[in-house]
Amino acid sequence: MAALCENLGVNEAGHLTFAGQDTAELAKQYATPLYLLDEDRIRKNCRAYTEAFRAYFPAGSRVLYAAKANAFAEIFRIVQQEGLGADVVSCGEIYTAKKAGFDLSNAYFHSNNKTDEDIRFATENGVGCFVAESEEEILAIAQAAAARGIRQKVMLRITPGIDPHTYEAISTGKVDSKFGVAIETGQADAVTALALAQQQLELVGFHCHVGSQVFDEDVFERTAVVMLEFLASFRDHYGYTAKELNLGGGYGVRYLPDDPSYSLSEKLRQLSAVIGKTCEKLAYPQPAILMEPGRSIVADAGLTLYTVGTVKRIAGYKNYVSVDGGMTDNPRFALYGAIHEVVSASDALAPRTFRCDVVGRCCESGDVIRTDVLLPETVQRGDLLAACTTGAYNYSMASNYNRVPRPPIVMLSGGKSRVAVRRETLEDLVQYDL
Amino acid sequence: MAALCENLGVNEAGHLTFAGQDTAELAKQYATPLYLLDEDRIRKNCRAYTEAFRAYFPAGSRVLYAAKANAFAEIFRIVQQEGLGADVVSCGEIYTAKKAGFDLSNAYFHSNNKTDEDIRFATENGVGCFVAESEEEILAIAQAAAARGIRQKVMLRITPGIDPHTYEAISTGKVDSKFGVAIETGQADAVTALALAQQQLELVGFHCHVGSQVFDEDVFERTAVVMLEFLASFRDHYGYTAKELNLGGGYGVRYLPDDPSYSLSEKLRQLSAVIGKTCEKLAYPQPAILMEPGRSIVADAGLTLYTVGTVKRIAGYKNYVSVDGGMTDNPRFALYGAIHEVVSASDALAPRTFRCDVVGRCCESGDVIRTDVLLPETVQRGDLLAACTTGAYNYSMASNYNRVPRPPIVMLSGGKSRVAVRRETLEDLVQYDL
Repeated sequence: MAALCENLGVNEAGHLTFAGQDTAELAKQYATPLYLLDEDRIRKNCRAYTEAFRAYFPAGSRVLYAAKANAFAEIFRIVQQEGLGADVVSCGEIYTAKKAGFDLSNAYFHSNNKTDEDIRFATENGVGCFVAESEEEILAIAQAAAARGIRQKVMLRITPGIDPHTYEAISTGKVDSKFGVAIETGQADAVTALALAQQQLELVGFHCHVGSQVFDEDVFERTAVVMLEFLASFRDHYGYTAKELNLGGGYGVRYLPDDPSYSLSEKLRQLSAVIGKTCEKLAYPQPAILMEPGRSIVADAGLTLYTVGTVKRIAGYKNYVSVDGGMTDNPRFALYGAIHEVVSASDALAPRTFRCDVVGRCCESGDVIRTDVLLPETVQRGDLLAACTTGAYNYSMASNYNRVPRPPIVMLSGGKSRVAVRRETLEDLVQYDL
Repeated sequence: MAALCENLGVNEAGHLTFAGQDTAELAKQYATPLYLLDEDRIRKNCRAYTEAFRAYFPAGSRVLYAAKANAFAEIFRIVQQEGLGADVVSCGEIYTAKKAGFDLSNAYFHSNNKTDEDIRFATENGVGCFVAESEEEILAIAQAAAARGIRQKVMLRITPGIDPHTYEAISTGKVDSKFGVAIETGQADAVTALALAQQQLELVGFHCHVGSQVFDEDVFERTAVVMLEFLASFRDHYGYTAKELNLGGGYGVRYLPDDPSYSLSEKLRQLSAVIGKTCEKLAYPQPAILMEPGRSIVADAGLTLYTVGTVKRIAGYKNYVSVDGGMTDNPRFALYGAIHEVVSASDALAPRTFRCDVVGRCCESGDVIRTDVLLPETVQRGDLLAACTTGAYNYSMASNYNRVPRPPIVMLSGGKSRVAVRRETLEDLVQYDL
């Protein structure tokens, strides 16, 4: 198990351990389905970024936690303690950060569609910087800033025209995208000129995001070069020099033992070398570098525990093992066919010889945790299963489909556990019904 | 517009009307995104079933609303007033029904994975009938019934081995399914014998479900024949005669103007003729027939209103129109590529010449309402768009991804509107966070 992530292990009782704690004990204490988050791993992941940033990037460079990966109050406190800012995408994320005591001057507000109400709310709450995506938005932010008598920092989101070859749904750097404005079409120039013309706006720089879950060696490097060339060209024509270059998120996460390993520090060192060389060539003063990891901060800090309900053996066809959660708490298979490692948590040492699909409890065939799983031959009602690497885009995308309450998030640190998000109750489910 | 559903129209102001009401006025009153539900249409859809059932099926036959399509308190009140029972799939749906004053003796409890806690909760609350799917479950229900000193009605879910050629994710009648037990493998016989051997269980009959969104002429007829042959064979071997045959859901819904139209009454009349003839041939006393429509009760009673935020024209590529909702309230495109008709609600008479993708506000490329939409050339920030036929599997599958609050459901009837489910607030979003 440790081959996937060092926070996984097995104890002498044959129980899966996570962050050094017995998952069977945790299931008994908190019930299932249950999201576990390894706080120490989150902090370690944050530090891998912040230490490399301090070592390789200019002063003012910063790491922003992409809250969409997993947004709740406690995570904002943890990343703030680790010196990260935040990438937020809605009033809901801003409100959550504020409730958690997060300093919103360190927040960058994204979204391809910020409403007037969103913009008003963000300026009222002192959000540090807007990442603007369109002419409409630039004008709306300028108006909101004027109404409050402030000068609002903004970045512009640019599509550099790079396809990182990840899932279609999380590939966002192409020209043909709902996000940002393209260099290739000349729209990036036009929108930048519009932003510079607004007295109420301070343009601090540019943002781009070529996609999530990037493993490809040089995607960030190619992106940085394209962006710096755009910056230099814009400077040559309009005389504006950017202070910040935000390269978006995020380096890849290992979901399966066979996924490639890499050194984040080494990748960032190489990236910094490319940026340094390119700036020199273009005679462009090195901008501060921002990145927005989300998945790579929280994914491998997460584990979901389920209890088996039925084991169905269909001779000549397939076996199905049903658990007490499903697409409601783990929607990534239904959405993308994404694969998480699934193992027995109550019998982690037994030979894995029983091939089956592990499916959820929802009345929907597509409600699958993972197909083609190997479990112990003896798997039965009451056994515990674990889906690994579920810290990102599981809780944040969870639904109440079938009126199933969302599980709690229990945070693990230094051998202790505490509830960070409480379990929904049946009464919670009906609270909006009149 | 009326070509899609008779509850759609356009008024003299050029605004889309729904259930006879001006959608622009409704958007002003309730804000967007906004789910509208046409109560009169829901009741009409219910009556199409109940009237045909009275005309064509034996006494004791009944229509169950498949609550998973859209579950909230008011819908349980409406379908109960229309004489429907309910198909429920979780404690959450049972609890919602109970809160609404729904008579739970008219509820049938489904799920491929009922936990011991689910079973206890359902028996305590007097749920009329369990639809059991496995040996584990039969034993668990018998045990729970014994603990309460009751005799619990159950049906058994059988997979008849029929593939209705609908979406993979909603095709559930095949032998290779997480649902039910197969006739073909002999497991249906074994599980039936097990159920009959339980003193605490009263086996009332059998359930099957070949999939949702069925248009194919004879799917229900073929299914009924296979099931009746199974019933007769089982009777011949074990002497048990079923009182109820539950054929599941549901007839197809027209999502696009080109989708086929049909007469539900005529389909049910034909089905009843096939059942009658088959029972005669098999010398089997006609069982009461149950069906579980969900989508066909609520889908075309629903409309979602959005406000446009940005209009992005990428020369040589594509146009994007972003709205203030997305996969959070309308997840069916992200999950299945399912297509809803999308039209301008504020300018419904203008020529539709602007080809674009209508996309949501979430930070995710796959957050699309519909690709290849035709809108008026003048579409701009502040305009209203409508997604049609969204009454099923939109609210019930909604999430808070990106910490976006879920929209309210406003019920329309007889020219009046009322909130049935209130809008989530920012404070609601953080209520579970410690």
